[in-house]
Amino acid sequence: MSRNIANAFASTTEVPALPAWPGSSPPAAHRRAIVLVGMPGAGKTSIGRRLAMRLGLPFLDADAEIEAAAGLPITDIFARYGEAHFRDGERRVIARLLAGPPIVLATGGGAFADARTRAAIRASGAVSIWLHCRMPTLLRRVAGREHRPMFLNADPAEVLERLMAARHPLYAEADIVIACSDESPETTTRRVQEALESWQPPARLPVTLGERSYEIVVGDGLLARAGALLAPVLPARHAVVVTDETVGPLHLPTLRAGLEEAGFALLAEITVPPGEASKDFSRLQLVLERMLAAGADRRTAVIALGGGVVGDLAGFAAAIALRGLPFVQVPTTLLAQVDSSVGGKTGVNLALGKNLVGAFHQPRIVLADTATLATLPARELRAGYAEVAKHGLLSGERLWHWCETQGEALVRGESEALVTAVLESCRLKSAVVAGDEREESAEGGRALLNLGHTFGHALEAECGYGGTLLHGEAVAVGLGLAASLSARLGHCSQELPGRVIAHLQACGLPARIGDLPRGFSVAALLGRMRKDKKVRDGALRFVLLRGPGEAFTAGDVPAETVERLLRDEGCAA
Amino acid sequence: MSRNIANAFASTTEVPALPAWPGSSPPAAHRRAIVLVGMPGAGKTSIGRRLAMRLGLPFLDADAEIEAAAGLPITDIFARYGEAHFRDGERRVIARLLAGPPIVLATGGGAFADARTRAAIRASGAVSIWLHCRMPTLLRRVAGREHRPMFLNADPAEVLERLMAARHPLYAEADIVIACSDESPETTTRRVQEALESWQPPARLPVTLGERSYEIVVGDGLLARAGALLAPVLPARHAVVVTDETVGPLHLPTLRAGLEEAGFALLAEITVPPGEASKDFSRLQLVLERMLAAGADRRTAVIALGGGVVGDLAGFAAAIALRGLPFVQVPTTLLAQVDSSVGGKTGVNLALGKNLVGAFHQPRIVLADTATLATLPARELRAGYAEVAKHGLLSGERLWHWCETQGEALVRGESEALVTAVLESCRLKSAVVAGDEREESAEGGRALLNLGHTFGHALEAECGYGGTLLHGEAVAVGLGLAASLSARLGHCSQELPGRVIAHLQACGLPARIGDLPRGFSVAALLGRMRKDKKVRDGALRFVLLRGPGEAFTAGDVPAETVERLLRDEGCAA
Repeated sequence: MSRNIANAFASTTEVPALPAWPGSSPPAAHRRAIVLVGMPGAGKTSIGRRLAMRLGLPFLDADAEIEAAAGLPITDIFARYGEAHFRDGERRVIARLLAGPPIVLATGGGAFADARTRAAIRASGAVSIWLHCRMPTLLRRVAGREHRPMFLNADPAEVLERLMAARHPLYAEADIVIACSDESPETTTRRVQEALESWQPPARLPVTLGERSYEIVVGDGLLARAGALLAPVLPARHAVVVTDETVGPLHLPTLRAGLEEAGFALLAEITVPPGEASKDFSRLQLVLERMLAAGADRRTAVIALGGGVVGDLAGFAAAIALRGLPFVQVPTTLLAQVDSSVGGKTGVNLALGKNLVGAFHQPRIVLADTATLATLPARELRAGYAEVAKHGLLSGERLWHWCETQGEALVRGESEALVTAVLESCRLKSAVVAGDEREESAEGGRALLNLGHTFGHALEAECGYGGTLLHGEAVAVGLGLAASLSARLGHCSQELPGRVIAHLQACGLPARIGDLPRGFSVAALLGRMRKDKKVRDGALRFVLLRGPGEAFTAGDVPAETVERLLRDEGCAA
Repeated sequence: MSRNIANAFASTTEVPALPAWPGSSPPAAHRRAIVLVGMPGAGKTSIGRRLAMRLGLPFLDADAEIEAAAGLPITDIFARYGEAHFRDGERRVIARLLAGPPIVLATGGGAFADARTRAAIRASGAVSIWLHCRMPTLLRRVAGREHRPMFLNADPAEVLERLMAARHPLYAEADIVIACSDESPETTTRRVQEALESWQPPARLPVTLGERSYEIVVGDGLLARAGALLAPVLPARHAVVVTDETVGPLHLPTLRAGLEEAGFALLAEITVPPGEASKDFSRLQLVLERMLAAGADRRTAVIALGGGVVGDLAGFAAAIALRGLPFVQVPTTLLAQVDSSVGGKTGVNLALGKNLVGAFHQPRIVLADTATLATLPARELRAGYAEVAKHGLLSGERLWHWCETQGEALVRGESEALVTAVLESCRLKSAVVAGDEREESAEGGRALLNLGHTFGHALEAECGYGGTLLHGEAVAVGLGLAASLSARLGHCSQELPGRVIAHLQACGLPARIGDLPRGFSVAALLGRMRKDKKVRDGALRFVLLRGPGEAFTAGDVPAETVERLLRDEGCAA
């Protein structure tokens, strides 16, 4: 591996209109401590000294500090107390050094290979940098270090080979990886400094669900560092990936490389046909059989790489294989990033209806790599935006106003707008889900997320699920209708429907029934709405608005008002 | 409904060798308060006064006490404050009266129809008795009560009809139901007294799993009162039943009547073929489609009536239909009552292996009706006993000694032994499950329940699942082998294996490989054991014994020791 992936995490700066996103505006890299990790001979000390000088920070060598603290050379600590004891002390010393003002710290080769030391370095907020050298370079540099305990009475090449195999997957968890060749220390130091300056950590949004809590990581270029991001939250470094025939060729190679970098074994790569038809029972059985035949055990993670269909199918397979495997969402559509990857709903369809069979199964982590959205057809990006606009209406004037000003940039694919939209959508949705994980709240709670969906589901069902009307497009019309219905019932201002409709249309979305390429009958739509899963006792149930940020559920909407609205929208009587 | 089901709950007395079971030795009925419920005119006051006299208890009329407390006639409380206010006061007065020394209490007709008042009466420990009268009797008796608020300006027959339809399903939750005909009050009172004297509540074992806690109800004749037992713990009075072609004809009519008594609508009765082959993916899909096509919604309970196969299949369907429906276990085999009904494991098989797909889904309640075991073939009863013996070995000398002295009575079908075995087994297993719900404990925890199962699963797999070797028979041989292995490894006394084997053989179970009708090869069995789901990294994993009550898991058993044991047991090299 010689590629330089120092820039894997590109910028995630936020849009000025919104207040700072927690974590998206980190201290500049030179205000954090910097931890250099890598094999013996990688140049941690020589690069570290030079880097410290350039940055005007103190340089410290962890091994020297440990020897000072113990009053013993490291060889003696190893010999007298054993490695476990040494690692404990090493971790304490490193944590103490990183708790103070920013420094550049060179660590011993085994430090970052220790899971608890890695966790301590991550928790300190330091930036970790792996100086990744190849064997010939290392061998040359370790010549003359035969006094080190690891080389005593052994062939250095053999020792290094064994250590590299064990440690490289662990070093790969560093924030920044610098591939070092036989260049001068000055050159490497300059490259490290450049990487540091352009580096920003991906934004992390915590979803708080007790022992099922997890983080949504949002950023540009996450797939290439997938292994580093997943390893800390998974029980083992083996996984199966489920993807579809469209997404697999585009993104699986990057994900695979990102996983392999951190030593993940991919037991199976399961590719399903794209589209809703894959969310069926026989496909589910095939996926389960594939993953189990490949040797998945209770610690094997199931990674869903794709849109909502792949997420629902793979997530449900993860929920029920061996009564529950760890699950990872890697959503590659805007709809999945802003909606289906948060909430833990997984499932498949029956002939009787959509999502009738499934489970709540929370992921261990969600990687929302906004770079994957660049490969999305424009129509799908727009459709995904409908859910962002819905979140804007649910959240309040602040996010709704952001939608009105930035939505058009987003549907053009502008990266900053995409990152903000994903973060803000996930923030809203995860707050709602945290309060009502299993959709048990009678009023409000997760039910509010169905704003626009009573109408939307009916329109979608009437059109079939073949692509005539995308889910997001149906939701967009549903949002327009929900706003209109709210105004007719006197709940919101008469201006709101026009504002909602104008914005969605400006983003290239349909927002009225007349915007759709076919007609509908009032009776057919009402019939569909009465059969909606959320309906109790046949009463029509809507999420209505008093204004942005003021949604509520209503189970008592008169059928006549809905009928009149649909007729006025041009539906056949 | 005119049958007298006063004796629905027959005796559940415990066996002297074991200490008193909590709840199985209740205060005699006359030392509890007695609450009479029923329609206006059912005779609650006249029977109540006579019963109180016979039992030497004070008689109180709840309505009179409420009027005294409020200082107002009930008509005025209704008129001034409305029914909701009255019911709140009524509940408080009733709870206060029942908190004192035992009394006989006649309640107003609406009292027991109020869910919170029913709960308060249940919580007080009082025995509730429904005086169940038919319409002509009631009509005759209410003549002249036109001053009651309910009859003002209305036709009494219409009022009674409406009230009966609404209240009879709720009155049916009473502990005892007395069908009253036009007999004298003395005759009814005598019948009530007899019913009280022969009545004992079923034993209830709490399984403590936080918000998923539930009770296992054990007794003789529970099916006939299923509705009364289920209604308090279910969200709605509608359900689907899943059963098999063997159990359905034997027990579904009783269960159906018991549910209908409490107003349950059975949306679907789904019958699957008996046997392991029904635990497959396509059968699961059929069951899901049937229940959803019948209109099951999120509040519909799924009731499993049958053995382990039906419980696993129906429980898994309940876990994933609409992302989780309330589930009720009604196990009708000894194996299911002592084992698979506790623990929440549900699932189906794949061609790759058993139980590879499933969910942890705890029931809302388990009804273990020991009367259903009378219809069980003797071989199946014996096979189920193997798990009881396993629980004896896991629990300690006390229960193991009980097994040695009562096991033979149990396999002859003696009711007292059955009830004790079910209670003690569920007590042991639920304590283990409560400490390790999702089987995550590395050592101990649920893994200990696999005592005898490493060998057992291998023997069972070698024989296929066609009935050559029942699961319990395989476990019995597995228990013998696990004891022998423990002795050979020096963990337990050399006497224990003989004691285990002799007891199992005395109960008609195989306990050594030589007891089985076919031979096995060492290599085949070892190969199966290495593929066991619980195996990690190919190491053989056994639950071993230091003695009864002292089990532990061992992942380091030398293959040679196991090989030698199997050869000594007569397996081909």
